[in-house]
Amino acid sequence: MQFELTKEFLDDISTAVAERNSVFVIENISELHPVDIAEILDQVNLQEAQFIYRQLNEDQASSVLVELEEDIREQFLASLSAKEIATQLDNIESDDAADIIQDLPEYRKQRVLSQLEDEEHSDEISMLLEYDEDSAGGLMATEYIVTNVNWTIEQSLLELRLQAEETSYVYTIYVVNDNNELLGTLSLKSFLYADNKTKIKNLYRKEPISVSTDTGAEEVAQLMEKYDLVAMPVVDAENRLVGRITIDDIVDVIKEEAEKDFQMASGISERVDDRDTVWVLTRARLPWLLVGLFGGILGSLVIGSFDEQLKVLPVLAFFIPLIGAMGGNVGVQSSAIIVQGIANNSLSLDSTTKKILKELGVALLNGTVLGLLIFAYTIVTEAELKLSLTIATSLFSVIVFAGIFGTLIPLILHKRKIDPALATGPFITTLNDIIGQLIYFSIAWFFFF
Amino acid sequence: MQFELTKEFLDDISTAVAERNSVFVIENISELHPVDIAEILDQVNLQEAQFIYRQLNEDQASSVLVELEEDIREQFLASLSAKEIATQLDNIESDDAADIIQDLPEYRKQRVLSQLEDEEHSDEISMLLEYDEDSAGGLMATEYIVTNVNWTIEQSLLELRLQAEETSYVYTIYVVNDNNELLGTLSLKSFLYADNKTKIKNLYRKEPISVSTDTGAEEVAQLMEKYDLVAMPVVDAENRLVGRITIDDIVDVIKEEAEKDFQMASGISERVDDRDTVWVLTRARLPWLLVGLFGGILGSLVIGSFDEQLKVLPVLAFFIPLIGAMGGNVGVQSSAIIVQGIANNSLSLDSTTKKILKELGVALLNGTVLGLLIFAYTIVTEAELKLSLTIATSLFSVIVFAGIFGTLIPLILHKRKIDPALATGPFITTLNDIIGQLIYFSIAWFFFF
Repeated sequence: MQFELTKEFLDDISTAVAERNSVFVIENISELHPVDIAEILDQVNLQEAQFIYRQLNEDQASSVLVELEEDIREQFLASLSAKEIATQLDNIESDDAADIIQDLPEYRKQRVLSQLEDEEHSDEISMLLEYDEDSAGGLMATEYIVTNVNWTIEQSLLELRLQAEETSYVYTIYVVNDNNELLGTLSLKSFLYADNKTKIKNLYRKEPISVSTDTGAEEVAQLMEKYDLVAMPVVDAENRLVGRITIDDIVDVIKEEAEKDFQMASGISERVDDRDTVWVLTRARLPWLLVGLFGGILGSLVIGSFDEQLKVLPVLAFFIPLIGAMGGNVGVQSSAIIVQGIANNSLSLDSTTKKILKELGVALLNGTVLGLLIFAYTIVTEAELKLSLTIATSLFSVIVFAGIFGTLIPLILHKRKIDPALATGPFITTLNDIIGQLIYFSIAWFFFF
Repeated sequence: MQFELTKEFLDDISTAVAERNSVFVIENISELHPVDIAEILDQVNLQEAQFIYRQLNEDQASSVLVELEEDIREQFLASLSAKEIATQLDNIESDDAADIIQDLPEYRKQRVLSQLEDEEHSDEISMLLEYDEDSAGGLMATEYIVTNVNWTIEQSLLELRLQAEETSYVYTIYVVNDNNELLGTLSLKSFLYADNKTKIKNLYRKEPISVSTDTGAEEVAQLMEKYDLVAMPVVDAENRLVGRITIDDIVDVIKEEAEKDFQMASGISERVDDRDTVWVLTRARLPWLLVGLFGGILGSLVIGSFDEQLKVLPVLAFFIPLIGAMGGNVGVQSSAIIVQGIANNSLSLDSTTKKILKELGVALLNGTVLGLLIFAYTIVTEAELKLSLTIATSLFSVIVFAGIFGTLIPLILHKRKIDPALATGPFITTLNDIIGQLIYFSIAWFFFF
């Protein structure tokens, strides 16, 4: 059975901490996976977390530090000395170590680095800190297993043992030449089979897939996903191996990317969850609501400019929500398909014109079905042909317009290097809503006035 | 440089295929990664794909088959004999093999399985076919590396060599007892270091994390993500090791899950991309538009029941879109946070009451800010206190109502085992829109009539 964090367990731990009952804490926590311990620390308050943290052994303490949520970790680090942080970092792989101290003030970062016991480790961490967080350089670790193409299996084995000492997990064995240029990979399988005297040269697989330090995180994710890689080698401008990115970090990138799109589509402007404070949650939600408010005001001006018509024909007002909602819905639907295609790098190679024509086909079909339905409904309930025609034609036009608009906008945004997911958000929905009302009242004016 | 598929390249290939120019096809394709070859086959038409496929060598052909998109693969398999399919499956790991023949008609499936050369492989595939596609059993492969806790390093090495023969990638070495019960894992590192006579017993790590064959795919994904696992062992009801799930399959689960949520939020009812036909795209989009249409009709009834008021005060109509859009936006925002928390298994352990109180706080803040803004705007433009009060109070009430409704609905859906992402879709948005109008016109009635 896996550990599952319950409210009861948290309450017991809190009570134990309040009573300074280290025995209880150690008994119930020390056997857990560091990930689970981190989850507990994320849920309790800072004082409780510090008490629990002090009960952990050194190995656990450093692993837990890696797994803590960023904001909790920041508070934590603030309560530790540079020397204490350095001691933890000595046990942690370079990429995680860089993540941990990344947000410290510059002078503290330097103090921690200078206190590290292993100078090479310290140099590697400071090199990683130079890279953009969202690039391959910022994601990679400098711990990997590498062998030289000119060596034999026997020589390699000796080297690998040394390297394995500082690498917690062996994913792939990389093969380089004397200039440290990446040539390919060696499977564990061929390693297990081969004779001790065999040269790596005759065993390795030429594997051209690598990224450079400045490749963007999203592109790395797309490549690893496409080629089903567990680890991706990172090379510098001269094709020299400098690090490797592991799939667990990429899973986080993939999730964040998908969440960002989902949040954009639902009108939330920063990454939040239900444990954030009321203040943070409001801050994430207010901006798009302001856009909505502004859009609503514009909408009121559009409808307001037709107030003479409304006085004569108040029934027009009944269908305002229908027209607005359908424009929004259709626009978001067509944008979503393009946005997802861009995110997955799976858009068809068709020209924009062909894409628009296809969307036109979909919109004509949907528009005809829905237009006929609303025509039938209104002719029965309102019994006025001109009114039914107005509503049905408007609905049809709005669906066609919003469909094409929804397809075009994300393509244009993407071309201008703006996140196309913006098109699924409240901004475009609001715009579709307003334009929908304009179309509706213009058609009504045409039929009636 | 990675291969990038371009329109020009596809045109060249199509021309070569039309001219039956195998030399050109082989020269330009045979050096590519199977994933890239599959991508080409996905883009060309069936006849072209078949011509290209026939130029591949056996190893490539089977790898490409694994990577093809499902609908393309189905057409492909239809043109092959059972014997031809069986030849391909012999080179493919059990989980991929099961995926490939899964959708074949039952009699064909049996014929393919009976034609496989390796009877054990055939039995394993047919066992995997028994499991639900979305369970750990349906995701696992039966190829893994395992050693017995009572063996020495030397004995293990001999066994591992045999096992490595049929396993394309070594992720983790599992440790079992004589009953094949899973005890833990052995790191490659300890393997590299240890003396030949050392017993596995003294080296392995007790690792309690495993799933059973009937664990759901989503739960497997959550666990692998949480514990940063590259491979997850699968056990049966007696804790005997029966397979392992690799991270590349889980990355697909994670992506699909996120895409499903995104599509739900944007009102698309099945998984589509822009390469699908107009017909498929329409089918995916029409259902939610029908919901929207129905909602719009209900909305027209709500507003219609206030038509006397509208005749007296047509200005009320101007703000219909504002009220509707804001109700929808706020509802989706608050639902999205809960939906994402459920999907990530990261919801706070707070009670529902506490969650609602927090949402109330956010809604009161947002409602106050937006209510004051619209009050200021309308008092300036319309210069009538009662009207401004009506609009501002309505907006405030709608924001509070939609916020709480949006928080509650996904929690209720989840409790009733319905996908909570439904709450971010057009259904709830439409409902919020309608209830918003009801609140708006009721408040107007209270102030004016």
